[in-house]
Amino acid sequence: MTPFSVDPTRFLRDLHTLRGFGKDGNGVRRRAFTDADMAARDWLAGQFADAGLTPCFDPVGNLFGLAPGRSLLIGSHSDTQPEGGWLDGALGVIAALEIARAHGEAGGNAISVVSFQDEEGRFGALTGSSVWAGKLSLAQADILRATDGTGFAEARECLAGRQGDFVDPARFNGFLEMHIEQGPALDASTDRIGVVTGIVGLRQVQIIVQGQQNHAGTTPMALRRDAFTAVTRIATRVEDRMANVVTPNSVWTVGHLRLEPNASSIVPGRATFTLQWRDADDDRLARMEQVIHDVIAQVQEETGCTIAVERLRQDLKPVPMDQTMQAALTRAAEAVAPDQWRSMPSGALHDASNVAALMPVGMLFVPSINGISHAFEEDTAEDDLVVGLQVLADAAAHLAPGR
Amino acid sequence: MTPFSVDPTRFLRDLHTLRGFGKDGNGVRRRAFTDADMAARDWLAGQFADAGLTPCFDPVGNLFGLAPGRSLLIGSHSDTQPEGGWLDGALGVIAALEIARAHGEAGGNAISVVSFQDEEGRFGALTGSSVWAGKLSLAQADILRATDGTGFAEARECLAGRQGDFVDPARFNGFLEMHIEQGPALDASTDRIGVVTGIVGLRQVQIIVQGQQNHAGTTPMALRRDAFTAVTRIATRVEDRMANVVTPNSVWTVGHLRLEPNASSIVPGRATFTLQWRDADDDRLARMEQVIHDVIAQVQEETGCTIAVERLRQDLKPVPMDQTMQAALTRAAEAVAPDQWRSMPSGALHDASNVAALMPVGMLFVPSINGISHAFEEDTAEDDLVVGLQVLADAAAHLAPGR
Repeated sequence: MTPFSVDPTRFLRDLHTLRGFGKDGNGVRRRAFTDADMAARDWLAGQFADAGLTPCFDPVGNLFGLAPGRSLLIGSHSDTQPEGGWLDGALGVIAALEIARAHGEAGGNAISVVSFQDEEGRFGALTGSSVWAGKLSLAQADILRATDGTGFAEARECLAGRQGDFVDPARFNGFLEMHIEQGPALDASTDRIGVVTGIVGLRQVQIIVQGQQNHAGTTPMALRRDAFTAVTRIATRVEDRMANVVTPNSVWTVGHLRLEPNASSIVPGRATFTLQWRDADDDRLARMEQVIHDVIAQVQEETGCTIAVERLRQDLKPVPMDQTMQAALTRAAEAVAPDQWRSMPSGALHDASNVAALMPVGMLFVPSINGISHAFEEDTAEDDLVVGLQVLADAAAHLAPGR
Repeated sequence: MTPFSVDPTRFLRDLHTLRGFGKDGNGVRRRAFTDADMAARDWLAGQFADAGLTPCFDPVGNLFGLAPGRSLLIGSHSDTQPEGGWLDGALGVIAALEIARAHGEAGGNAISVVSFQDEEGRFGALTGSSVWAGKLSLAQADILRATDGTGFAEARECLAGRQGDFVDPARFNGFLEMHIEQGPALDASTDRIGVVTGIVGLRQVQIIVQGQQNHAGTTPMALRRDAFTAVTRIATRVEDRMANVVTPNSVWTVGHLRLEPNASSIVPGRATFTLQWRDADDDRLARMEQVIHDVIAQVQEETGCTIAVERLRQDLKPVPMDQTMQAALTRAAEAVAPDQWRSMPSGALHDASNVAALMPVGMLFVPSINGISHAFEEDTAEDDLVVGLQVLADAAAHLAPGR
């Protein structure tokens, strides 16, 4: 493939131009299919055309900039949360634009660009890439409804006059996505690049502890069946026992808890809480689940409380990144930022999880300052944005067809 | 003092008659100053008169049946919770009536009876005995308001035509109260009598843990400041450390907890919870508090969370029962129910706590089946009610003046 070099100044200029659509202070409000989102996509479509790509909106609003013939697809999403950060998915879209453009200028033309629609879930979650990957039918998507009452079918009517057909995934030999980390790991380790090994899977249970509600003055400790005591034993013992099973990248969380009757002078009779765990390895997710069940059985025995475990949501399976894509990103990271990169799982979901059902996929992270995302304060050092661009460009040069 | 013997049949009959005022299924609805409560008090006043006592309503609705000259006061309260049990305070009032009556029949006349008003706190808490004991002024009581909007001043207008003055506490050489235990200790040990050593004191703090709210997928365990993890460490460590400080009668409770934002995919940023502890010994209450503060300091250090401790209510000091009264009750318990009684603190508040500010006080418990009270299911075996009456009568025979 023709060598080519990207232009960091042009890349940063375009990133700030995109920020202008829906700008609010340091952040951005650009929900899927709002005026700001569609204006941004129209501007992007123009940039794609200027770069020699054919702009194409598909029926769910995913915007492609297509290279002729077979190509490597790069991109992310340009919609945001209600109070979104300026980088998030926008970074990956503008980096893809710059790489495709630079490649074209150097005489190559085998890189296509995409901005998926509704990654941030105004209607569903990762809606645009879910439909493209066949995980959600168009009919299923059309009945989704935003919290403001707008239906997806109604929202996508604004595509009339812009709309093309779904793009054939067979055009692409793979997909690369650059994204901000949305977590504190790179910021804490001062690495500049994360090469993503996989997108973690997720399991979640709701645990209901039935004890005995009682007077907090007249019920001796030895005769209590205190639902909250059972909860604290489960939580602390899970923490202890997980050590034998997990890696530093495994996580588990008690995020939601309700006590009943929740009064300071009454021994809690009932507690309902969620326990969620995530890991990039499905076997490890299962071993973590076994720890949880073992601890619950033990605490039930000890406390005399009745403890029920229910699954309230579907498991999400881990999605490993393609080895060839990972190798190209790793090689590029070491070339551009020697000893300043690490391999890591992605704890958050991304469009790449869906696209992995269609083709080989690789992902790259740049640091999030203080780990903050989905907030106006979200930011990344400019140098790190440029390093990310260069690593992505280097990997793309090795992965694009026609090399 | 003249020996006398009580009549269990008459006692049980009167107890069931009183149950009829406000009866609902097995339980009773007899809130302070409602029609059912005042009808019950008028009936009691008639019974007092028939027993040779002078009925006297004081300005807050406490109903006395006064023996001439100096006497021992016995009683409890006849008002109930909105959904009250049939025994609760009623038991102590009817037992007192039977004892005073039997004493009069035997030619003695040194036992007075009382039913305090609003022990169950329709307006305040232990309102009638609080005013009598000088802990609450009549003016302070008059501005109390029930949840239905009724003011105490307005409610006590129904006393017009019944009302006498406050009774001079100097008439009495002491006060005895029999009550159901309202806890499971006697039921579990199969003892029939509890001789109360003191009414426990209570301290309570609200603990606010400020951690760092974060994404439950992208935030590695090592970089979290999880407010709920801090809570569970405080709770389990307090449980461990208390062992060195407490007796089997000491209790502590986390009854109320609020997590923020309380969502299953978000590491909790903030937790607010109450920790309440009770013991009959004020020094031990202070030592328990020290354990709590030590644990909090340690968990703050370990977790990096900021932990604030606030006192939201006034401490209640423990109220020890009078040694002479305890000795009389102990002797009587051993005589009537050898090896079937125990000494124990009262974990709940009673009118006796207030009366202890005026004169020597003793208390007696009978078992609550399954420890249930403040509910329609509240009950005590009939045999245990009679044993309680006999122990109380025996102690009264030794404590009443003129012996």
